[in-house]
Amino acid sequence: MVDVSGKPLASIVSAGLSKFGKLEGKYSREIFLEATREAFAGCPSLDPRRDIKALFIGQMSESFEHQGHAGPSICDWVGLLPVPATHIEAACASSGVALRCAVVSIMSGMYDIVLVGGVEKMTHRSTSDATEYLAMASDFPLEQWNGVTFPSLFGLMATAHMDRYGTTEEQLAMVAVKNHRYGCLNPKAQLQREITMKQVLESRPVAWPLKLFDCSLISDGASCLILTNPELANRYTDSPVDIIGTGQGSGTIGLYERDDITCMESARSAARQAYGMAEKTPRDIEVAEVHDCFTIAELIAYEDLGICKPGGGGKLVEQGETQLGGSLPVNTSGGLKAKGHPVGATGTAQACEIYLQLTGQAGQRQVKDASLGLTHNIGGSGSTAAVHIYKRRE
Amino acid sequence: MVDVSGKPLASIVSAGLSKFGKLEGKYSREIFLEATREAFAGCPSLDPRRDIKALFIGQMSESFEHQGHAGPSICDWVGLLPVPATHIEAACASSGVALRCAVVSIMSGMYDIVLVGGVEKMTHRSTSDATEYLAMASDFPLEQWNGVTFPSLFGLMATAHMDRYGTTEEQLAMVAVKNHRYGCLNPKAQLQREITMKQVLESRPVAWPLKLFDCSLISDGASCLILTNPELANRYTDSPVDIIGTGQGSGTIGLYERDDITCMESARSAARQAYGMAEKTPRDIEVAEVHDCFTIAELIAYEDLGICKPGGGGKLVEQGETQLGGSLPVNTSGGLKAKGHPVGATGTAQACEIYLQLTGQAGQRQVKDASLGLTHNIGGSGSTAAVHIYKRRE
Repeated sequence: MVDVSGKPLASIVSAGLSKFGKLEGKYSREIFLEATREAFAGCPSLDPRRDIKALFIGQMSESFEHQGHAGPSICDWVGLLPVPATHIEAACASSGVALRCAVVSIMSGMYDIVLVGGVEKMTHRSTSDATEYLAMASDFPLEQWNGVTFPSLFGLMATAHMDRYGTTEEQLAMVAVKNHRYGCLNPKAQLQREITMKQVLESRPVAWPLKLFDCSLISDGASCLILTNPELANRYTDSPVDIIGTGQGSGTIGLYERDDITCMESARSAARQAYGMAEKTPRDIEVAEVHDCFTIAELIAYEDLGICKPGGGGKLVEQGETQLGGSLPVNTSGGLKAKGHPVGATGTAQACEIYLQLTGQAGQRQVKDASLGLTHNIGGSGSTAAVHIYKRRE
Repeated sequence: MVDVSGKPLASIVSAGLSKFGKLEGKYSREIFLEATREAFAGCPSLDPRRDIKALFIGQMSESFEHQGHAGPSICDWVGLLPVPATHIEAACASSGVALRCAVVSIMSGMYDIVLVGGVEKMTHRSTSDATEYLAMASDFPLEQWNGVTFPSLFGLMATAHMDRYGTTEEQLAMVAVKNHRYGCLNPKAQLQREITMKQVLESRPVAWPLKLFDCSLISDGASCLILTNPELANRYTDSPVDIIGTGQGSGTIGLYERDDITCMESARSAARQAYGMAEKTPRDIEVAEVHDCFTIAELIAYEDLGICKPGGGGKLVEQGETQLGGSLPVNTSGGLKAKGHPVGATGTAQACEIYLQLTGQAGQRQVKDASLGLTHNIGGSGSTAAVHIYKRRE
């Protein structure tokens, strides 16, 4: 392997995010177009048709729109034909993994400028359809077939975490309250309203201990980034953000196969790789977006990323360390919980938030002078994990 | 972009193919395991768990098995956790595109040894289910919704080709007869029986002018390759095959959007890239596997690859140029037509055949002294194309 320690692997020169929420009457390729328009507008010196050499697109499911072959479908609508268009599926980590593929493609020298993003259109289907399609990312014979869904899988993780570490329902609720608070500061977020501890704790159970407000949303939305070779970045922007670490890991497809369901080995492995490549430690990170598909997942993310020790997640949120003003603000975008979770779009949407933070464009939710950020994107019950580390260029 | 002209990009040190056909009672991850066992057995100096650093897997559809998240699912069964496992979907070109991603990842220096392959399990579903799931790779609003299926899309291409170039039903049938002849020489092929011109021409129409024997098969199967950095290849085998060219192109998702439906711009673009990178011309190629999902597709492939001029495909097969003993034998494996077409497995299955040919392991279907080969893998109605060029190391 080449030694890339501490060096920029690829650079973000622009980013785009559609509105997240219920986007009626639009196909996912049209929603993705909305995200690319913002990214292109933010990078006027780029001529997309001339300059962009490949597209990497994360999308989870062909089932929502009865439309597979997302690569050319989206490439066609964005006007980039005939460039290579590659569709990556890794459940809710689809665009996190697409981002890694895009970074690797830049590192290879095959392309110097690529568009990478993700999209999902979910809200036109019933909740039971959506639950079924999402469940396809878990094990068919021993999970789906027995009626296990993602709320119940994460409910099992939460129960185990509470049992082993004494994590409380209140601590879970604090994640939801925090992320809703930041959703209010993000004009693209699906839910822009604060919620109270009481509302969370009294909301109806979905899969105990997870209640309605412990769960992320069914959403439509798209996100994208324009990545360049680090040497070219200044041609397109005065404030590039370099990706300096990338990690990807895999875990068992079935939760039942694991010795320990209070952590995710895939995320630990991905984090080790990303920190190592970036030559950074958890203490260096100044802002992070983590995969809060359920409130318990955010606590586990703190632990898997080494922000606190195993079992320390509940205390960390309780002490306010992951709030704006705390030692490491997490999910300033509102997270999957309030910003929304159009599953294929989530990985690069996290990167969009870090891009805004590191370029000082995060408005009311800005982490002052943030120069180093991290994203943590999970697929399924942690069967896939992608972690990236970003640095503002000085 | 880096200049890689004429240099090896990555090297194949082993390959594996499951039996193709109706494999009852097996999940796709179990079928993939069968392919990997052959690849691992062919490379005894490799310790998969120690040496393989990533998995790239092509699979088309979550719908056949109600199982998404193919990356970790297959990584888990193959015993490679926690290495990064990336699932690529590009319809019937899924593993052709996965191969390109794998090659690019080796070029990047991110990994030095990777496993790449593809799999599909299709035969347990009804023909109408399979037709519907495959159709998801075409345009939903204007094709699928109106009942258009892949046989009808390729029927339209065939009609246009006949109208413009005078291609005949007999010439189409010759492709089927040729490929069935080679299927008989391939012990892994789904159909190992010869067919006659009369049988093809008298078989029942599916979408005129395409008849039953003009169509490829619904199949179960898996294929894989072990790829290394070219500098490491000799550590694992005395007869590596270098990949010296890779190309990928995209076309419109809808056939209705194209000015010309007698060719595929995606394939032309992919071929140009691959030839350019390899510094080779069509005349240099000694053996090729092309995407004969329907007989017309093989004729169009000859033309898009520059083996003959546009419209010359019918004559080329009629003159026997693409038979064993002809100037460029095509689809010695039996092709999708007789070997079978487990859609996600097809791209790397083509590469497996070229690997066998270039290492002199193709048995009765061996092209004598072949040292340079090509694969051409199409997704949808040519919305995706992947072309690779392979060279035996001297």
